[in-house]
Amino acid sequence: MKIYGDIQSGNCYKVKLLCSLLEIEHEWVHVDILAGGTQTSDFLVRNPNGKIPLLELPDGRCLFESNAILNYLAIGSALLPKDSFDLAKVQQWQFFEQYSHEPFIAVARFIAKYLGLPEDRRADYESKQEGGSKALSVMEAQLKETPYLAGEQLTTADISLYGYTHVAEEGGFTLSNYPAIQVWIDRIATHPNYVGMA
Amino acid sequence: MKIYGDIQSGNCYKVKLLCSLLEIEHEWVHVDILAGGTQTSDFLVRNPNGKIPLLELPDGRCLFESNAILNYLAIGSALLPKDSFDLAKVQQWQFFEQYSHEPFIAVARFIAKYLGLPEDRRADYESKQEGGSKALSVMEAQLKETPYLAGEQLTTADISLYGYTHVAEEGGFTLSNYPAIQVWIDRIATHPNYVGMA
Repeated sequence: MKIYGDIQSGNCYKVKLLCSLLEIEHEWVHVDILAGGTQTSDFLVRNPNGKIPLLELPDGRCLFESNAILNYLAIGSALLPKDSFDLAKVQQWQFFEQYSHEPFIAVARFIAKYLGLPEDRRADYESKQEGGSKALSVMEAQLKETPYLAGEQLTTADISLYGYTHVAEEGGFTLSNYPAIQVWIDRIATHPNYVGMA
Repeated sequence: MKIYGDIQSGNCYKVKLLCSLLEIEHEWVHVDILAGGTQTSDFLVRNPNGKIPLLELPDGRCLFESNAILNYLAIGSALLPKDSFDLAKVQQWQFFEQYSHEPFIAVARFIAKYLGLPEDRRADYESKQEGGSKALSVMEAQLKETPYLAGEQLTTADISLYGYTHVAEEGGFTLSNYPAIQVWIDRIATHPNYVGMA
């Protein structure tokens, strides 16, 4: 099993973290996005959407979208609830992540950390702050109620949202405004086989 | 079971279509977004993210995010594949929809249809065309290979992507450029209990 990714991308790191937590053996194939590695004909055959991470099974079948990969790799593990409503809650948080969290927090971080916050991207960067803060507030409200996003147990929803949340300060967000998120970040790092982004 | 939504929203229409296809009884509670219906304290208790659609179970538990609602309501039906990789493919397409399709096609449609394409939103509208066209191309490539997005059968992935794709022309996209998508749109409408958006 191969995973194509770049560990500095939160979307790819999610998959790396899950594989570590579940001790899933895999070959990590580094792809350099800025050098065009996701736009080669060889890559586009595997993912016509031209994005990482990408999972390739030994038989050649491919799966894209980080959260779909997480849920596929977690089948049968404790990271997916057995109860159908709890499982729906996991997906709820993952769709929230892709629509209401990542486009603000990950993009602000990209502009600041990778592009060095150039003047011509400053307005774009600033425009991400409100939406990102709102997403963190929605998480904070849940994490005041339950230790993990979908309830009492660590699930793939936490891994999905941990990816960019724990590095949100690199996008200009102040995590000390969100104490329940801070406790949750620390709680995730205590799990056996936890691995950081670096 | 209550569903809070606005049938003119593609994200809400998805849920309406699925309930019709599966003959799921429910009470539809109309929410007027433009009048602030998703930002009342009463609504925010149910969905702190302040968005529709929202599913409320008879016991009061709530679920948000359209695609999570679809997958929950479809449990046990033919709209969710039994095979775990096929099920992962359904989720892949649904995450693709929320990240790479909806933010372009639904937003362009909203600016054109609901705001009347005002001059001060024209640049925003134009900026959505490239991403939306790319998303349609990715769908077209798959639908040249298989009759439905996740393979041989209609799944919740098709319902997720049908929501805004079948009205993409309202956002300035030319569906005649995508013949496999056009055939797929017609194919979906032939299913028993299909219901349109209007």
